[in-house]
Amino acid sequence: MIGGKRILGDLDRRSLFTGTAAFVAIGVGGGDSAAAQSDPLPSWNEGPAKRSIVEFVARVTGPGPDFVPVAERIAVFDNDGTLWAEQPMYTQAYFILHRLQALAPNHPEWETREPFASLLKGDMRRAASLASEADIAEIMTVTHAGMTTDEFESSVREWIGSAKHPETGRLFSRMVYQPMLELLAYLRANGFKTFIVSGGGIEFMRPWTEAVYGIPPEQVVGTAGGLKFELGDGKPVLRKLPTLVHNDDKDGKPIGIQRHIGRRPIAAFGNSDGDLAMLQWTAAGPGPRLALYVHHTDAAREWAYDRKSHVGQLDRGLDEARAKGWTVVSMKDDWKTIYP
Amino acid sequence: MIGGKRILGDLDRRSLFTGTAAFVAIGVGGGDSAAAQSDPLPSWNEGPAKRSIVEFVARVTGPGPDFVPVAERIAVFDNDGTLWAEQPMYTQAYFILHRLQALAPNHPEWETREPFASLLKGDMRRAASLASEADIAEIMTVTHAGMTTDEFESSVREWIGSAKHPETGRLFSRMVYQPMLELLAYLRANGFKTFIVSGGGIEFMRPWTEAVYGIPPEQVVGTAGGLKFELGDGKPVLRKLPTLVHNDDKDGKPIGIQRHIGRRPIAAFGNSDGDLAMLQWTAAGPGPRLALYVHHTDAAREWAYDRKSHVGQLDRGLDEARAKGWTVVSMKDDWKTIYP
Repeated sequence: MIGGKRILGDLDRRSLFTGTAAFVAIGVGGGDSAAAQSDPLPSWNEGPAKRSIVEFVARVTGPGPDFVPVAERIAVFDNDGTLWAEQPMYTQAYFILHRLQALAPNHPEWETREPFASLLKGDMRRAASLASEADIAEIMTVTHAGMTTDEFESSVREWIGSAKHPETGRLFSRMVYQPMLELLAYLRANGFKTFIVSGGGIEFMRPWTEAVYGIPPEQVVGTAGGLKFELGDGKPVLRKLPTLVHNDDKDGKPIGIQRHIGRRPIAAFGNSDGDLAMLQWTAAGPGPRLALYVHHTDAAREWAYDRKSHVGQLDRGLDEARAKGWTVVSMKDDWKTIYP
Repeated sequence: MIGGKRILGDLDRRSLFTGTAAFVAIGVGGGDSAAAQSDPLPSWNEGPAKRSIVEFVARVTGPGPDFVPVAERIAVFDNDGTLWAEQPMYTQAYFILHRLQALAPNHPEWETREPFASLLKGDMRRAASLASEADIAEIMTVTHAGMTTDEFESSVREWIGSAKHPETGRLFSRMVYQPMLELLAYLRANGFKTFIVSGGGIEFMRPWTEAVYGIPPEQVVGTAGGLKFELGDGKPVLRKLPTLVHNDDKDGKPIGIQRHIGRRPIAAFGNSDGDLAMLQWTAAGPGPRLALYVHHTDAAREWAYDRKSHVGQLDRGLDEARAKGWTVVSMKDDWKTIYP
């Protein structure tokens, strides 16, 4: 069901940080302006994480045995928790709530039928405690299927243009991480092709990834539902079906990479156990590889969570990263700035 | 079954042209060298087909109301019969035969079991008359599943590097159409991103499309089988499964486009009814559109077939192209040269 279980399944266990006040003091990052001009990653503090990135890029782009041709410089990024915030709920869950509210006038029965009644009142905790698998499937169906791809794209564009995070008051599209925007630009400036490989819905991400990350729709891999080609009155449409075609999470990530990209990345960036298989697949190729985890360690400026979180859990991945010497970015220590 | 029915189902009805002699007189194309230098499509004769291409590119790239930003200049190409020859059998069918022969020593029972016995003797007609759906599924399974993606890629690379067409004696990789190679280069020089959208197996095409067409693996859409991520002894692999995940033919083409590319092309190139939905989807978008059919009209230099062919049938598509004013390329009249 288009990742519905993943997106909605943890509503009752979401962390309930109300860290709004913590966002007041964020500037545009420190450092003197001369250094910033020559530094492609000005929001990154000097340290082993930044050094591992810069050294990797130098190795694969410079002369020497580790040189990688431009065509093979593929870098893949998880989205939720790696490029933008995912607490206290995945952004797509807020979109789903919005869609339900928009559809509610056509469904008067939802006023008394759970979990819809609680969802429409914003009581996520109660809704999640009442929702069955069938309810979640129904929620994904009514919000993500039945319409044409053009209609769905319009609804996403409209929502993302104005929707704000309930705790920070920022546009969701500005809940992206400034250091990661710099990293994307730095890699592209060095000949990399940057892809998103996310458990989120592919059609939920594509309408805005180009504007927000500089990543075009054809470089977005995600969880995908079925589609049907309909000619109708001679004007063809693609209609979204309530079937799950690809679940782009865990083992689904290297599978999505193979299916969409068709070659193994040389760099992969994630933040959770859902990204572990993608990092393993990337790291196991020959030659220099960069496997990097963003570790959410900053309760003051963002959120702090890892092994026990029900959104973006990072447990096995953290152990494997340490065992294999992968790069682990501490948001608190390695990033001067969180948001743009 | 990875397009197996499409690829193998018509073996007994294949046309049996033996036009080898017709390939003798092919030069590198006519025209004086001064014109060729300024003409991006030197293997195309002057005429309405060439004119429609050049005028379309001028409209979408020049100033004016029809200008299309580079990011939206998406062009999609069918492969079999559009970029390279598909007679008397799809090239992938020759690869399947090769794989069966390579695997035969491990399957002594094939010597007496049909349709394998006939296939291994090269009697395609008899094999096809005997093959059940289950046999075809088994053939696709043994030749296209069970191995890792890396192993499969190696076997394709090895084969395509030396395999020759039985009638022309040319490498299959040189059975590509010179005018279409020029068209690919011309579109890319004008800011287009070129994609293959083919009923052929995605993992069969990707190992060679970059070298042959300049189209990288991530811009190849095709029929796809299931994959499984296996960690094994800590060295991850992707194993090919005998399941069909996407049949990239007919309605599957616009669906494959949406899933892989995520935006509607403005130009589409095909040669059969299997491409009709892709051309309809492309042509129905707003603004200038180029929908083009390659019509196989040249029995002397290539093959001539359309409405009644069991490989690359072009019947409904030809009617719709004429009704809607799409471009129809006559290979005999519009192309100075067929092969490079």
